[in-house]
Amino acid sequence: MDTPTKRIAINFGGGYVPGLNAVITGTVLAASELGWEVVGIRDGFEGLLFPDRYPEGGLVKLTPQIVENLAAATGCILGTAAHSDPFHVRTINAENMVEEVDRSDELLGMIKKEKIDAVISVVGSRALSILWKLSRKGLKTVCVPKSVENDVAATMLSFGFNSALSFVADMLERCRQAAQSARRIGVVEVLGEHSGWLALQAGMAVCADAVLIPEIPYDLHKVAAKLREKAKAGLSFGLVVAAEGAKPLADLNVPPKTSDPKMKAALSPGATGHEGFHVMERSGQVAVEVALEIQRLTDQETYPLVLGQLARGGTATVVDRQLGLGYGAGAVRALNSNQSGVMVVFQPPDLKFVPLTEAINKFRTIPADSEFVQIARALGISLGD
Amino acid sequence: MDTPTKRIAINFGGGYVPGLNAVITGTVLAASELGWEVVGIRDGFEGLLFPDRYPEGGLVKLTPQIVENLAAATGCILGTAAHSDPFHVRTINAENMVEEVDRSDELLGMIKKEKIDAVISVVGSRALSILWKLSRKGLKTVCVPKSVENDVAATMLSFGFNSALSFVADMLERCRQAAQSARRIGVVEVLGEHSGWLALQAGMAVCADAVLIPEIPYDLHKVAAKLREKAKAGLSFGLVVAAEGAKPLADLNVPPKTSDPKMKAALSPGATGHEGFHVMERSGQVAVEVALEIQRLTDQETYPLVLGQLARGGTATVVDRQLGLGYGAGAVRALNSNQSGVMVVFQPPDLKFVPLTEAINKFRTIPADSEFVQIARALGISLGD
Amino acid sequence: MDTPTKRIAINFGGGYVPGLNAVITGTVLAASELGWEVVGIRDGFEGLLFPDRYPEGGLVKLTPQIVENLAAATGCILGTAAHSDPFHVRTINAENMVEEVDRSDELLGMIKKEKIDAVISVVGSRALSILWKLSRKGLKTVCVPKSVENDVAATMLSFGFNSALSFVADMLERCRQAAQSARRIGVVEVLGEHSGWLALQAGMAVCADAVLIPEIPYDLHKVAAKLREKAKAGLSFGLVVAAEGAKPLADLNVPPKTSDPKMKAALSPGATGHEGFHVMERSGQVAVEVALEIQRLTDQETYPLVLGQLARGGTATVVDRQLGLGYGAGAVRALNSNQSGVMVVFQPPDLKFVPLTEAINKFRTIPADSEFVQIARALGISLGD
Amino acid sequence: MDTPTKRIAINFGGGYVPGLNAVITGTVLAASELGWEVVGIRDGFEGLLFPDRYPEGGLVKLTPQIVENLAAATGCILGTAAHSDPFHVRTINAENMVEEVDRSDELLGMIKKEKIDAVISVVGSRALSILWKLSRKGLKTVCVPKSVENDVAATMLSFGFNSALSFVADMLERCRQAAQSARRIGVVEVLGEHSGWLALQAGMAVCADAVLIPEIPYDLHKVAAKLREKAKAGLSFGLVVAAEGAKPLADLNVPPKTSDPKMKAALSPGATGHEGFHVMERSGQVAVEVALEIQRLTDQETYPLVLGQLARGGTATVVDRQLGLGYGAGAVRALNSNQSGVMVVFQPPDLKFVPLTEAINKFRTIPADSEFVQIARALGISLGD
Repeated sequence: MDTPTKRIAINFGGGYVPGLNAVITGTVLAASELGWEVVGIRDGFEGLLFPDRYPEGGLVKLTPQIVENLAAATGCILGTAAHSDPFHVRTINAENMVEEVDRSDELLGMIKKEKIDAVISVVGSRALSILWKLSRKGLKTVCVPKSVENDVAATMLSFGFNSALSFVADMLERCRQAAQSARRIGVVEVLGEHSGWLALQAGMAVCADAVLIPEIPYDLHKVAAKLREKAKAGLSFGLVVAAEGAKPLADLNVPPKTSDPKMKAALSPGATGHEGFHVMERSGQVAVEVALEIQRLTDQETYPLVLGQLARGGTATVVDRQLGLGYGAGAVRALNSNQSGVMVVFQPPDLKFVPLTEAINKFRTIPADSEFVQIARALGISLGD
Repeated sequence: MDTPTKRIAINFGGGYVPGLNAVITGTVLAASELGWEVVGIRDGFEGLLFPDRYPEGGLVKLTPQIVENLAAATGCILGTAAHSDPFHVRTINAENMVEEVDRSDELLGMIKKEKIDAVISVVGSRALSILWKLSRKGLKTVCVPKSVENDVAATMLSFGFNSALSFVADMLERCRQAAQSARRIGVVEVLGEHSGWLALQAGMAVCADAVLIPEIPYDLHKVAAKLREKAKAGLSFGLVVAAEGAKPLADLNVPPKTSDPKMKAALSPGATGHEGFHVMERSGQVAVEVALEIQRLTDQETYPLVLGQLARGGTATVVDRQLGLGYGAGAVRALNSNQSGVMVVFQPPDLKFVPLTEAINKFRTIPADSEFVQIARALGISLGD
Repeated sequence: MDTPTKRIAINFGGGYVPGLNAVITGTVLAASELGWEVVGIRDGFEGLLFPDRYPEGGLVKLTPQIVENLAAATGCILGTAAHSDPFHVRTINAENMVEEVDRSDELLGMIKKEKIDAVISVVGSRALSILWKLSRKGLKTVCVPKSVENDVAATMLSFGFNSALSFVADMLERCRQAAQSARRIGVVEVLGEHSGWLALQAGMAVCADAVLIPEIPYDLHKVAAKLREKAKAGLSFGLVVAAEGAKPLADLNVPPKTSDPKMKAALSPGATGHEGFHVMERSGQVAVEVALEIQRLTDQETYPLVLGQLARGGTATVVDRQLGLGYGAGAVRALNSNQSGVMVVFQPPDLKFVPLTEAINKFRTIPADSEFVQIARALGISLGD
Repeated sequence: MDTPTKRIAINFGGGYVPGLNAVITGTVLAASELGWEVVGIRDGFEGLLFPDRYPEGGLVKLTPQIVENLAAATGCILGTAAHSDPFHVRTINAENMVEEVDRSDELLGMIKKEKIDAVISVVGSRALSILWKLSRKGLKTVCVPKSVENDVAATMLSFGFNSALSFVADMLERCRQAAQSARRIGVVEVLGEHSGWLALQAGMAVCADAVLIPEIPYDLHKVAAKLREKAKAGLSFGLVVAAEGAKPLADLNVPPKTSDPKMKAALSPGATGHEGFHVMERSGQVAVEVALEIQRLTDQETYPLVLGQLARGGTATVVDRQLGLGYGAGAVRALNSNQSGVMVVFQPPDLKFVPLTEAINKFRTIPADSEFVQIARALGISLGD
């Protein structure tokens, strides 16, 4: 007799995005309808790997009562783990040196010991690979795609993207109005190292003058030409949106001519350097470089602005609340039909399941003939080419 | 040589929805890129049919400068016409009697006289038929689907739906919290005479206890049973969402047992009757009837609330701003490829064009096996069946 | 030696308002800085009076860790008690009859037994009297004024008012736009049985055509005259805002001519009657009566709408978040300076303490020469007189 | 016979703030009730000084119809002028050199020629002086205080502050959550060169760990000590809010040790320098300096963020919409009672009029014993001292 999965876990990898509690709620309610138990693992897998850090326990029992008011609440009651990888856990060894050790077997043992039958992991592109490796080692798992950049492959919509898009578009509208009011050109950098969905869709929503995305190398002479023409018509202001991964056409084969390291360090929260900030991520550079160059080419007052990580906070939109509940329920459905090593994806109007192999080691980028690209061009928005 | 369309018009039929200015903006920017002129017709076709009502003219010249800040602005600079139908125009005849006359030929003549090559009409299900009839009489036209109920056939997303959904879900979250705080059961009626998308998606987003939609006749004994069970567990409160077109299972073949006309009149802004309010629409009845019955069946304090037309106001979400710009640009694209008698539709991730005949005389309803229905059931939400 | 208060409690009486968690946060952080302990009493005093209802305890220990993310969170982690009065507790006696008993002494005993030195109560006008009576019987207490109607005497700003005002004004803006778009007159009823602050300030913020408040008996002929004049100028639409306590000039000395009880029951969530809803509150009547009369007097399409209790939900504005933190800290300050039987009040720019006797048995109403009244009149808003 | 003012003008000086249209609406409606005409001057006084720049005229006739839907609309239909000063107008002289000329007499002549009896100017601290000088030369004028920093003297509330505060607090809440989620310390710089109201009130509303304001020189050792203590308790994250005018205790008498000019230029939109951006304003420096130092002192990952001018955009809160309408109506009231050379101020609950001399050449700063300072300290928020 096939006994059903009885006790499942849920956890979150990668960065914070709005509305994670909705996925928890969807998972718990759907599992509860099937009579299953759900536990949450704190901070990715750290609740299991580092139990000492959690005086009240690294696992949290999740009941329908606990999620009663949770779906719309900000934050994430379980925490996320941006850099947690059980295959590469930083430890201090006997010689007092930092080294990375593989604790994946230990983790699988703990999951077994806790009688957890399967793990639902809400993760971005990077952490998907970790889950796939754990899956290959025997972990029963279903993944839910999560990304404010919407860059997870195989799904049309990653969890968190719509909320980030909504916030970024509202900020861009502020920037556009401020630029117009002060008769300046604003250059705003938004998240998107590998794909430009956030920049393109938000930039389109506010009818920016130009949008620079990683998929299309940019030539600022073309952007500047458009802004100069606009200025001639009396409209000496503008808004340029740049994804953090946007790159100039000219520099494709040459190393980036990045200025002095100190400036980079100061500007980019996380750029490297002894004197600068700790390594976090490359950020802020594009806004500054583009703004300086556009100012030079247009002779108009230009200023850079970096929205960056702010897009990760705040309240989830209704789209994300629905999607989170749906993804949670969908992951339970996958487990209930004995699937594993799969990711729940949204292919409107349906939820589907695809093998993790279809989603790992790649990013969902914007095709050259994408409808959004066509619309942006039709509206007269320069894409820098 | 094929000379392109040179001067096009845009107008709005049916009720107001948030973000109409985004469609204007998309149309004007895309047309402008092609070197076309755009004029707006005020209040549906009334700007042409009743020029005397418009001292400053029934047509508005629309330029890129005019739409510079328009996409995110609330309201609609052209106005809409809820009840305007050139085939049935109310007039007072020689005998001083009200009669309906067909002014469609006259309208087509005016459009020709104004050298308008084509009309982009942003309309709901009802007005689509009018445009189709005008199209058959020779009007070159492209329609854009607009509906806060998302009930226009052939498109996955009508303009205005996402904004209405966002508002309704936020209101339902308020109602849910208020009901929980006061330990009552709230019954909230939302728009949706023919289809329950708004009720189902918003109700799902807030994890309502039950959602009643036109597509699934309801049995309140089942809803009450669920609420009583919840009350036994100490949770003596709840939220029931009802589309205005939801109908009881029992009453499918009997006439509605509607109470006294005065009450109906008072409750429903627009229910009929000599002493009551003018005829607007059927509204409010479902909330009251369901609330009274649930109170009787659960013996818990229950109250009705009608959101109704409030869902039509406010600011457009970013989804609708994008969609409006895209639909506007898409309609221009259709005209530019010499299409007519078509509607622009969104079939993610693409805009497509379908003949008007595929969209008229029907409503887009929720299929029994819809993903939303499945998710709602998986979450334990009662659909009244 | 005067040993300071060491363990204090906080609770909430009256209806729910947005942002109650901010008061908890302010209290806990300020008390913690003084080294005090704080506990929360669930549901007014019910956590103490009915311990059996609370399997996890009727008291909640509140630490800085617990309030870390609480200030901006919706809901109230302690619950409120709308009808809880320890002097009149409903019980079923030996003869199986419902009777009210005075359990105030018992309550004071429990507070003593729990070693609670003082109670901070966040309450509206009605519950203030209860706290005053408990204070006279020896309870050390400081009250914080809470009212979405801003009708608590002695303070310029009650907690919750600004959030309700913000919500109501946004809804009125929707109503105004919808009315204009559909060329109708909307009559919207808002909370305010004794004072019209919410109606007046929100109505002023959206430039309503008329605002009817309890402080100024209204003559609908004057309102209708204004709307007719506006219609003559081609503006055949309008918005009338009415506080639920607004009364017609004519009817001041005659009993209200209220229609049939069934209609009242259905309309007003909670109006009385065997067949109708349970007794909750008088609501909805004003909107309907005013709308019917204005429709009769103007011959324009008019519809009623009741916002009512919806104003109590949602997120707190920043003003209320500040005020809540300030009131919480202020109540601790009062206790730290050995005050009792006082209410913290906001007299800009300062927090002050006034004896409870200055606030009980009265309502803060709008003076005839109030600045808001003057501004409304200057803007051409009819106050119905 | 004393003929009343018949034709008045309104204009806006200084930077953009949300809700300026509400002041226009209040002015127009109140003036209209008195039978007055109102015109708007575009871009400060530039609509009069540079008529050639305005093909459709530098003056805009403002009627009640025009403001019908204006109060809640974003933007400003008249434009503002950040650097416009009729006493110092930049022109190119006969020798082709830039020089500043005094065109104030010319301006007064134009105002007379346009039969403008009085000017209502909505201005910040800097532009107040210009209006005072014009007033001394005979211009009949009433000023309305406008400042997102709330630094205009003599009024408790400047127009635009509440909207900026609301936005900044929401952004800080995002930053706080992001910092907690990523276990980092965020240092956020907000507007406030002379006074710290925005930093203090927004920082208080989100219970920041520390708030640095111009009024209190800061010692980062104290801030770091607090953050280290928090980290010891397992809370290794934090939020520091800094007004752009905040200064270190140590550096009060020494020149700022500002790093290399290129970095400054890049960081601060507007810091000076040949290679950098045009001169706009000093911005961004505080965030970076404080973040670097706190990172050094705590050895925790720290990142700077500059909100700056973003606080000037977006929608006005209901408080500002009320205030704008009230200030507009109040300015008309002042003119109607023959006042001139005064500013309308809000001294809750009343609007008052004070001579411009009471407001010029000073800033409204935070007193050491301010209620906000007391509350912040009571909540355990470090003010850096």
